[in-house]
Parts: sequence; structure tokens; C-alpha cells
Amino acid sequence: MAAEIICVGTELLLGEILNSNARFLAGELARLGIPHYFQTVVGDNIERIHQVLTLAVGRSQLIIFTGGLGPTPDDLTTEAIAQFFNAPLTERPEVLQDITEKFAQRRRQMTANNRKQALLPEGSQVLPNPTGTAPGLIWEPQPGVTILTFPGVPSELYHMWQQTAVPYLHSQGWGRQVIHSQVLRFWGIGESALATKVADFFTLTNPTVAPYAAAGEVRLRLSARADSEGAAIALIEPVAAQIRAIAGADYFGQDEATLATVVGDLLKKRGHTVAVAESCTGGGLGAILTAAPGSSAYFYGGVITYANAAKVKQLGVSPEVLAQQGAVSEPVAKQMALGVKALAATDWGISITGIAGPDGGTEQKPVGLVYIGLARPDGGVDIFDYRFGQERDRATIRELSACHALDRLRRQLLGL
Amino acid sequence: MAAEIICVGTELLLGEILNSNARFLAGELARLGIPHYFQTVVGDNIERIHQVLTLAVGRSQLIIFTGGLGPTPDDLTTEAIAQFFNAPLTERPEVLQDITEKFAQRRRQMTANNRKQALLPEGSQVLPNPTGTAPGLIWEPQPGVTILTFPGVPSELYHMWQQTAVPYLHSQGWGRQVIHSQVLRFWGIGESALATKVADFFTLTNPTVAPYAAAGEVRLRLSARADSEGAAIALIEPVAAQIRAIAGADYFGQDEATLATVVGDLLKKRGHTVAVAESCTGGGLGAILTAAPGSSAYFYGGVITYANAAKVKQLGVSPEVLAQQGAVSEPVAKQMALGVKALAATDWGISITGIAGPDGGTEQKPVGLVYIGLARPDGGVDIFDYRFGQERDRATIRELSACHALDRLRRQLLGL
Repeated sequence: MAAEIICVGTELLLGEILNSNARFLAGELARLGIPHYFQTVVGDNIERIHQVLTLAVGRSQLIIFTGGLGPTPDDLTTEAIAQFFNAPLTERPEVLQDITEKFAQRRRQMTANNRKQALLPEGSQVLPNPTGTAPGLIWEPQPGVTILTFPGVPSELYHMWQQTAVPYLHSQGWGRQVIHSQVLRFWGIGESALATKVADFFTLTNPTVAPYAAAGEVRLRLSARADSEGAAIALIEPVAAQIRAIAGADYFGQDEATLATVVGDLLKKRGHTVAVAESCTGGGLGAILTAAPGSSAYFYGGVITYANAAKVKQLGVSPEVLAQQGAVSEPVAKQMALGVKALAATDWGISITGIAGPDGGTEQKPVGLVYIGLARPDGGVDIFDYRFGQERDRATIRELSACHALDRLRRQLLGL
Repeated sequence: MAAEIICVGTELLLGEILNSNARFLAGELARLGIPHYFQTVVGDNIERIHQVLTLAVGRSQLIIFTGGLGPTPDDLTTEAIAQFFNAPLTERPEVLQDITEKFAQRRRQMTANNRKQALLPEGSQVLPNPTGTAPGLIWEPQPGVTILTFPGVPSELYHMWQQTAVPYLHSQGWGRQVIHSQVLRFWGIGESALATKVADFFTLTNPTVAPYAAAGEVRLRLSARADSEGAAIALIEPVAAQIRAIAGADYFGQDEATLATVVGDLLKKRGHTVAVAESCTGGGLGAILTAAPGSSAYFYGGVITYANAAKVKQLGVSPEVLAQQGAVSEPVAKQMALGVKALAATDWGISITGIAGPDGGTEQKPVGLVYIGLARPDGGVDIFDYRFGQERDRATIRELSACHALDRLRRQLLGL
């Protein structure tokens, strides 16, 4: 019994959007223990949707579609599926009523094209859409093949999946065995160095251990198959414990943990607070810290001192030092970190000043040069310099800067 | 002549990462006018990679693989392709030397598993990887079928694609006709309302016009096929001009333009500057503004006043008003916007204060309630309140807040 995911949308084939729906559904299928070996993306084209369906019907018992349920003429998914199984489309009065009511509530004009969204193939059930106007369907058009469809808008898909699709799948006997994965996350070590340290674990079969790398971060995925999530976790945990011991401080957290949430938990545990002074990241470090709900317990806020005038006025950075050493320099990073700690009266102050590019680099100070300052509770301050490389793009340099700043604070909080 | 994209990686099937490589390659193929109708994701599994290859060889002449070129045992792409075409793997001394040198430069220890990355099928060319250790390959294993492979690390793939793959494809006669797309971007109007206004254009065939929605934003994609990019643009432009006229102020920019770059351009044109005071977005608005290179021309910086103490100390918000009205209120948004404008001595000051959730909502002030303040050059201030809805998640509420703030500034700068 296997599932497969078919995402319909010319915008995916043109590379205009990321396929976040495939990622969400894939994670959910894994959580439910429903094997899934293929994902396909195909355009808004009836003939090619039929090609993909021919394959899918031959190898998968659960076929999940996303996209192409909208009100416009290029939204063809429902029509393509109905045609493939020779079922006529019929208008569902309860769906039409739901759409009409939603437009009334939002005080928006319902347009004629929205009526199309009430058409579903005969014999299919409505998969209700609580937040949007495009419902999906649940349909067994032939024995042993179940089709689910979802709109392409991610937030609508999430609600429909959780509220209706998951209970339906359970009721049909899907998801009896569980594949549980745990992801161990590392910062400050490369993929092959970590892989060499933990090579012995790669031959395990349950759980399996596999590495993969993201920007600046390395992850190991431990996956176990068992009858329950608890049983799978029991298989994973002893292996995870050994790997954590081998990795030491380079291991920072697991699964949904980020450097920001890990630092947040450490600050909370110590009753400490932090403030930030950001130049090249422009607020990105604050945004990462406050992405975690509850960050007000330890995050004061800080300053975005993008202009040099802001560094002088808000943080008391010396204009002479700025003139002599430049904004991207060790003494400026130091004054920024101490300045924001004093302003905010927090336990820690973090500063970031660097050249994110693509312009502004020189021979002495190339694009990718970043100074991070960390003002400590004892009044001292540490400065770290990074050269992320001129070949890296602005977004990557900014993200690495913010993450390395968090990692430095993490190691200090751990006393490492 | 069609291409297809095959992404190899169990992490994609488990939903652990977004498939940004498929998006990048899809966009590039579109730009080159190489038709591409299918994308497939498959796990690190030789048998299933063979299944996908069987299909691909039958329907596509250019097959682009990403992922599975790393040093670890689960990286199987090269091996799977070699096996499929019955070619032995041979060690390439020039690749081995390149890997050895890279490890030396980075002062990192080369491990035995890195040697595996120098193995390529006999008869294939090396597709050099200037930034990482995993090279790809260019191979015509049978007449009429060309295979390219790339590592899964996005930044490495980008460089290899631009530096080697694109010139190679041109030299082989790929990419002679061009599909050019232009994306028109709208803020402040829903998808079906816009679709109704511009419905007449949906029946065009060259260019085609198709809508799609992102969070808070609606886009129309205009795509034309022609012998050159210039000819395609000439087909698109008159249609785009008509649509822009119909949409009025709801149209904000095209292609890579974002609300932040559009606002930046308007500020530059007027010689104006802006500063931000952020509460619930925690620096996210500053991060969006500074994502644009050159933003120092108009962005001063600002304050992240996450804690109430920061609002009082850094912006002069009245403690009495905070106590009586709460931090998420019209008067606090007003004092924040005026406060940061005065502090920074800029032309404009933007403030954001709201409840991003998931906790902290009340009946009067639900999750999703956000106030945006806009202090104007004339000394006045406008306050806008939004109710993004309790069903939205924290990240969406924060992103919508920052984007609506930018849109308000945009409309003011346009005098609308």
C-alpha cells in the first residue's frame, strides 16, 4: 500500500514558486507511516495529468493531488480526474452555499467563476475547505484506488488535511504502521567530518541513519519503523544518545529545534535576557529570535543600526573609530555589543556588522567579512570574525551571520 | 525536445526540506525556452531511480538529476545512472586532486569517503563544482539522451549550472526558442476579484495569462514563446500595459520586484529616508527592507521594541498609555511611529505592534490583530488596523504585517 503525490501547476514547472505542499504532505505521510516513493509535478494540462494518473493508478493506492482547484479557466485538476475515470461533473448545492456564505462574510463580491468550484465528479465526497472557497474531494473511482484533492494554497491544504483527510485515512485503515524520524542538528562541523565520526551507524537498518547538509548546518536523520510511535522512538533513542555523545557541542538540538529556540531555552533556564544590535542583517537576527512564540521572556529587542549615524546616536559608537576602522571592524562590533547591552540593561548583547554584498567589498574587507560581538554578563566582550566567502550570495551571508551569532551565544551559555 | 528534472533524496520524500533546486532549474529551463513537463522526486534507492530513468529516457531528451552525489553511503545517484547504462565507474585523477586541494585550502581533514566523489561513469565528462567537493557529470549514454547531474546543495548547483551547464546546452543547440514570462504582482485585491477584472485576457494564447495566489499577494503570469527574448517581450508588453491600467494601485511591480524593492525605489526617487519601530515582527520588516542591496540609500535602521520597557525607553511611548490601552493599540502604534521618526530624523517612520500568536489573544484583542503606524514627512501619522484572523499562524501574521506596512508606505509615496 503506497501513496503518491501529484502537484499540478504550471507555476511549479516555470519555477515561480517553491513546492511547499509536497514537503508538507511528504512529512505527514511519513508521520502516518504511509510509504511514498514518488512525487510528480505536472502542468495545468489535461492530457499530461492523464499520463501521470495512468502511472499512479498502476503503482499507488492513494493518490494525492494538490493545485488546480481554483476558480480560473486554467484550473483543470477536477475536470481532468473526472474525465480520466469517465465520471460526469455535478454541481453540489451545499458547496455552492458554502462559497456564497464565505463571500458574504468577507464582504466581497462573489464572481461567476467561483461557481465552478462547486462542480465535483459524480460519486465523490466533498473534502470541505473551512478557510477557502475551493473544496477538495475524496473519491474511490475504482476498487483499490483512493483519490484526494487539495487546493494549492498551503494554509487551506493544511486545515483540510488535518481536519478531514487524516481522520478519513485512519478510518480506511491507512497509517497502521508508523515511520518515525528524528532529526539531529549540528552547527560548527562539516558533513563529511561528521559522517566520518559517526560512520558506524550508517549500516544500521532500523533505525536508519542518514546525513544531509543545509546552509551551514548538518543534519542526521534517524528513521525507525514500528507498530507505534512510542516503539519507533524506543528504537531511535539509544542510537541518538550515542551520536549526541560523539558530537559533543556541535550537536545543538533535534527536530523542530533551531539555534534560536535552543538559545531561547537556555536563556529562560538561566533567567537571562538578550538584546541585539544589527547592521548588515538589518533586523534578521531579531526576526529569527522572535519567530519562537514566548520569546518575550528573554528577548528585549534592540536596535537596527544600518546607517553609521544610527550606530553613533543609538549605541554610542565612536565616530573616530568608525572613520578610522570602518563600520565593519572589530572595535565597532565591540562598541555595538557593549552599547546595546548597556542601553537595554540585558545580560547579553549581540552585535553583527559585516559586508553582505554583492557590492561594498574591498581587497582588505571582502564581501562575506562579518564581525560578531558578544557582550557577556561579566562585562567582557568577545569578538568573532568570519569570512563567509565572496562567492556566497547576500541572503546566505546574512543568514549565516545571524545563525553563527546565535551559535556563539549558545556555546557561551553552555559554558563551552 | 523536452527536459525533465529528477530530484533524488529521501529527505524530500520525508518532507524535511523544500525542493528549492527543482524551482531553480524549472525557472532556468523556462528562461532558456526548453520545454519541461515533468518533475519527479525519488528516494536514494537504486531500483526506483532506475524506474524513473526508464520513463524519462522514453519521453525526454535532457534529463537533469540533483542530489545524491555526496560522500556518504546513501548517495547513490551516480552509481544508479552508471548501472542503468551498463557503464563502469572509474576514478578521475583531476577530480581527486581538486577535492584534495579544497580540503587543504579550508584547513579541514579530507576523509576517505570523499574519494568516492571522484568516481564517474566511463565516457562521461566532469561537470566541475567550483565551490564544493562533489562534481557532476555531462553524459550522452545513448544517442539522443543527455544526462546532467548536480549535487543537492543549492549554492553549488547554481554555480555549476551557470558556469558550465548553460554554455554546454547552448553549444548543443538546446534553448533556441525562448519562453519568456513576466509576472505582474498585486497587493490589496483577491484572486477572484482580479481574475474577474482581467478575465478577457485569459483566452489569449501568445502570450498566455494565468493567475496564481501567494500569501496576501496575487500574481498574473504572462508567458510568450518567440525566437528571441526581445520578440517575446514585445508580445507581452502591450498586454501587460493594459492589465496594469485596469488594476491601478493594486498593481505594485513585476518579476523580482517585491514590495520592499518597489518602496525602496520610490524612496530613492524622492530622496526620502525611513526608519522602523518593530514589536511583533521583531526585526522582520527591517530584514525585508535590507534584503535589497543598496538599501542603505534610504533605510536608516530603527528599533526592535519587543519589550514594553524598550518602547518606553527608546521611543518615548507613554507608560500610562501602555498600561491603559495595552501595547497592541492605536495610540501605542502612533507613538512608536512618531518616536522612531524623531529618533532617526528620517522622512518616514513605520511602526508595527500586534499579536502574532499563538498565545496572547483575548476576545477584544484576538490573535491576528495588528496596528501599523505611518508617520509622514508633514508631521502627521496614519494608523491602520488589521485583523488577519486567528486561524493564521505566527509566521504568516508576521509576514502579512510587514508587507501591509510596506504597501501602506508605497501607496502614500504614490500619493494614493
